[in-house]
Amino acid sequence: MRNKKGLLIVVSAPAGCGKDTILEAAFNLCDNLHYSVSVTTRTPRDGEQDGVHYFFKTREEFAEMLKNNELFEHTEYAGNLYGTPKSTIPEMLEAGKDVVLIIEVEGAENIKKIFPDCVLIFVLPPSLAELERRLKKRGTETGDTIKRRIDIAKIEMSFVKNYDYVIINERIEDAVAAFAAVIQAEKLTVKRGLPIIS
Amino acid sequence: MRNKKGLLIVVSAPAGCGKDTILEAAFNLCDNLHYSVSVTTRTPRDGEQDGVHYFFKTREEFAEMLKNNELFEHTEYAGNLYGTPKSTIPEMLEAGKDVVLIIEVEGAENIKKIFPDCVLIFVLPPSLAELERRLKKRGTETGDTIKRRIDIAKIEMSFVKNYDYVIINERIEDAVAAFAAVIQAEKLTVKRGLPIIS
Repeated sequence: MRNKKGLLIVVSAPAGCGKDTILEAAFNLCDNLHYSVSVTTRTPRDGEQDGVHYFFKTREEFAEMLKNNELFEHTEYAGNLYGTPKSTIPEMLEAGKDVVLIIEVEGAENIKKIFPDCVLIFVLPPSLAELERRLKKRGTETGDTIKRRIDIAKIEMSFVKNYDYVIINERIEDAVAAFAAVIQAEKLTVKRGLPIIS
Repeated sequence: MRNKKGLLIVVSAPAGCGKDTILEAAFNLCDNLHYSVSVTTRTPRDGEQDGVHYFFKTREEFAEMLKNNELFEHTEYAGNLYGTPKSTIPEMLEAGKDVVLIIEVEGAENIKKIFPDCVLIFVLPPSLAELERRLKKRGTETGDTIKRRIDIAKIEMSFVKNYDYVIINERIEDAVAAFAAVIQAEKLTVKRGLPIIS
């Protein structure tokens, strides 16, 4: 018998690295993954649902949550506020669920302070040129925004050293397999508790 | 580009846990695994090459290596001497090969002192009753020897806390997959070096 507490998996990645695609495939592959849903003031993209991808809030509602101390951490990124609600994560972990938290680099540092056992995974593009190509292909952003995203990516990448694992998303299948391997291996670590053999 | 240095993987397991079967399958699955080449005084069999399967030495040469402190550990089996040379592991790791070293619990502690970056994996049976059943099934040992093997297994299992990972060999396919996941995940750890993205 091993420790049945869930794993908190924090995933960060510059925009355009394909983390959503990796996670979508990983959720199909690993049957115990669950999202912790973040709160944001940004506008929903096509297909994004409130309470599934994010809790979409106005700046006023977000400020109210902050005032009531309902968030572990929050940050402003590209002009929008993002936050992690307190209520759900500890409950999910105790229930044995593996919780995935998508969060930017400074938020990840804060989460590590609150949950020292969390696993920090950073997803990187194979190169900055490839990241630019993917952002252009997405077609949702202007040239100026893309340039700013690349600049932000460079800054974010300087935080990689604080993470536990780096996955380079060159081929999506490989990146998904790598993600699944990290989760499986972490559950086998002695530091997370010894199995009892009798 | 990631650090291309190989991984030193130290595997320990009580007799009867199936580590040889796991490793055989893992060698088919992972294309970069290599055994650390041992030194032996036994006669080469047909097709065996010096420096590939073993380093073949005379007893005098072996004694000279021992005298010069060139072996990590050695043992005598069926009238022949076998040993683990110090020189080959660092060379193999530098050449980017992942090196597997099967070694008992005290030997593993010594290896960790010499190679702090090595990954220590302990393979366990699902239960002591199952271990006994497997040892009996093997049919090569008497009841007394089996009892002694179980007693030794209990002592060995008290060393698990010094290891990095524990793999329980309940179903062989799962144990092989777990072994492969550990190797893959270890190569993605930030502590083993950051990729350079430009």
